[in-house]
Amino acid sequence: MNVSGAVVVVGLGLLGGSVARTLAAGGHRVVGVDPSPATRAAARACGIAAVADATGIAGASGPGGGPVGAPSVVVLAVPLRAMGTAAAAVAPLVGAGTVLTDVGSVKAAVRAAVDAAGLGERYVGAHPMAGTERSGFEASSADLLPGARWAVTVAPGTRPDALATVLDLVTGPLGGTVTLLDDAAHDRAVALVSHVPHVLATELLGLVARSGSAGPALALAAGSFRDGTRVARTDPRRTEAMVVQNASAVAPLLREAADALSALAQRLERGAAVAGFFDAPDPVREALDRGSVVPGPRAGTPPGRELLGAPGWRERLLGAGAAGAVVVGVEEGPAGTTVLQHVRA
Amino acid sequence: MNVSGAVVVVGLGLLGGSVARTLAAGGHRVVGVDPSPATRAAARACGIAAVADATGIAGASGPGGGPVGAPSVVVLAVPLRAMGTAAAAVAPLVGAGTVLTDVGSVKAAVRAAVDAAGLGERYVGAHPMAGTERSGFEASSADLLPGARWAVTVAPGTRPDALATVLDLVTGPLGGTVTLLDDAAHDRAVALVSHVPHVLATELLGLVARSGSAGPALALAAGSFRDGTRVARTDPRRTEAMVVQNASAVAPLLREAADALSALAQRLERGAAVAGFFDAPDPVREALDRGSVVPGPRAGTPPGRELLGAPGWRERLLGAGAAGAVVVGVEEGPAGTTVLQHVRA
Repeated sequence: MNVSGAVVVVGLGLLGGSVARTLAAGGHRVVGVDPSPATRAAARACGIAAVADATGIAGASGPGGGPVGAPSVVVLAVPLRAMGTAAAAVAPLVGAGTVLTDVGSVKAAVRAAVDAAGLGERYVGAHPMAGTERSGFEASSADLLPGARWAVTVAPGTRPDALATVLDLVTGPLGGTVTLLDDAAHDRAVALVSHVPHVLATELLGLVARSGSAGPALALAAGSFRDGTRVARTDPRRTEAMVVQNASAVAPLLREAADALSALAQRLERGAAVAGFFDAPDPVREALDRGSVVPGPRAGTPPGRELLGAPGWRERLLGAGAAGAVVVGVEEGPAGTTVLQHVRA
Repeated sequence: MNVSGAVVVVGLGLLGGSVARTLAAGGHRVVGVDPSPATRAAARACGIAAVADATGIAGASGPGGGPVGAPSVVVLAVPLRAMGTAAAAVAPLVGAGTVLTDVGSVKAAVRAAVDAAGLGERYVGAHPMAGTERSGFEASSADLLPGARWAVTVAPGTRPDALATVLDLVTGPLGGTVTLLDDAAHDRAVALVSHVPHVLATELLGLVARSGSAGPALALAAGSFRDGTRVARTDPRRTEAMVVQNASAVAPLLREAADALSALAQRLERGAAVAGFFDAPDPVREALDRGSVVPGPRAGTPPGRELLGAPGWRERLLGAGAAGAVVVGVEEGPAGTTVLQHVRA
């Protein structure tokens, strides 16, 4: 990949640890920043240089023994509520060419934190659609991210070279593919497919807890109940943070769901027809039954190309992403960096 | 088992087909009733005698070649909306000792249909907590039911011998264990762990369908979204029927959920604390993390015993069921039939 200097990963939890392990396993220079001595010791045992705070980055030893210096990429992998503090801590230490990214599940709020630290132009948002119920470095793995779909977000001021670096990192050493979109579209999309589902699963468990008949109910709970509420059994503080940080996208959807459930209850009480409620999702059922709305590349079909920095590049990439294009790589050429993307068949 | 005559299974879909296959595989006399010639042919290829309608039951040939005569047990395995018609069709054909049961996912509505056909005393409700997204005889299997938890329901007029026969069938040849409860408790419990979850998963897909951004949302949908909405991708007519037949238990829970979601939306909009919403299900999280609210029998711990028909037997069994007891078998003895149950440790 183009990333010639070290990659610094701030926060060695499930996602940050997985980024660091994957890069280290691929022979890349990676420095982890984590306040926990136990986490740093575990990281070092996996070949990851580790320092306690951002001020230690420049002096950290790379795999060759020499100091790391100014990093090529800094990946913020701390909890959402800590993004502002982490961005401010790394701001004095970045070089002119250092690119900033993150793995947070909400993008507008992280960009605001990064803007406040004066790092907006060099920032590209990133969010891997991968995870487990577990958390912490001990749950991280070099197997978690390869093959994952990532959301990568750009804003009007995003530098093309910063985007190229992050796309190269994600589709190269991290083994992912990318849906490119703007922050608002990302935050609406994850509200629909992640945050609101977490809230509804939490409410399902809440209904059981308040019912006074949790015993008989759980005695009859089949696998589908356990599967459907799995996301609500993860750390409630993490779910709460995602929902609070994305409140402007989540709250209107919760109101819409509440209205739909009230209307359904009323129709059930009156004995009115309710088929419409159950048929409404038919198009989405069909899309999910097809396995994906974005077909993989057909054998022999070359990806489309978009030259970064050419007039209108950002709008064309966002338009392609909205239409289902998937970024599979970047390529350096005489004219500059080209984004390779497979578009919907 | 005690069931000496044939078992008739009315409706050879996923559950009825699985009941018939499991019994046939165990060498029991079983007759399937299904209007589809293709289904009957497929059933016969699996060693299951099959007739087109209930009037053919008495003359159907058993495995030994002789006519089946009056069946020991009739299992209604038709869709909920067809239970009344099926009960009326078998009513003229049952003998004095024939026991009636079913595999429907709602119990009060089925009992009302069976009562209307004059078969209430000989009826015991049954509901296996097993299923797949698929349906029809071709999806049925002799592997689906063994090991499943069943809900079995009794009413004040239930004959003890009818209960003994159904418990023997379920815990013997069908290889299940049983939570015993009354119809109302069953219907509340399945509303909580099955019907309301189906409705919320349907609404999640509906939100995506109505969003105008289904493409980007589904492009970012990770496995947890697919898992969490799996139950909403099954036959919408079947889900609708479960919800409509159990409207009196489902509707109040939908109103409760709608109120909780509206309140959460309002707090998010105001920036108020929302930790309470996410912490409310803690006791249920803990129960699910333990794997089950009903521990299995400890090695060497003999099951408790309840003599069917002894004064107060029904109340004692229902009380034990509510406290987490699991019926694991029945035993014939000089004093009558004894229910064997493991109680909560």
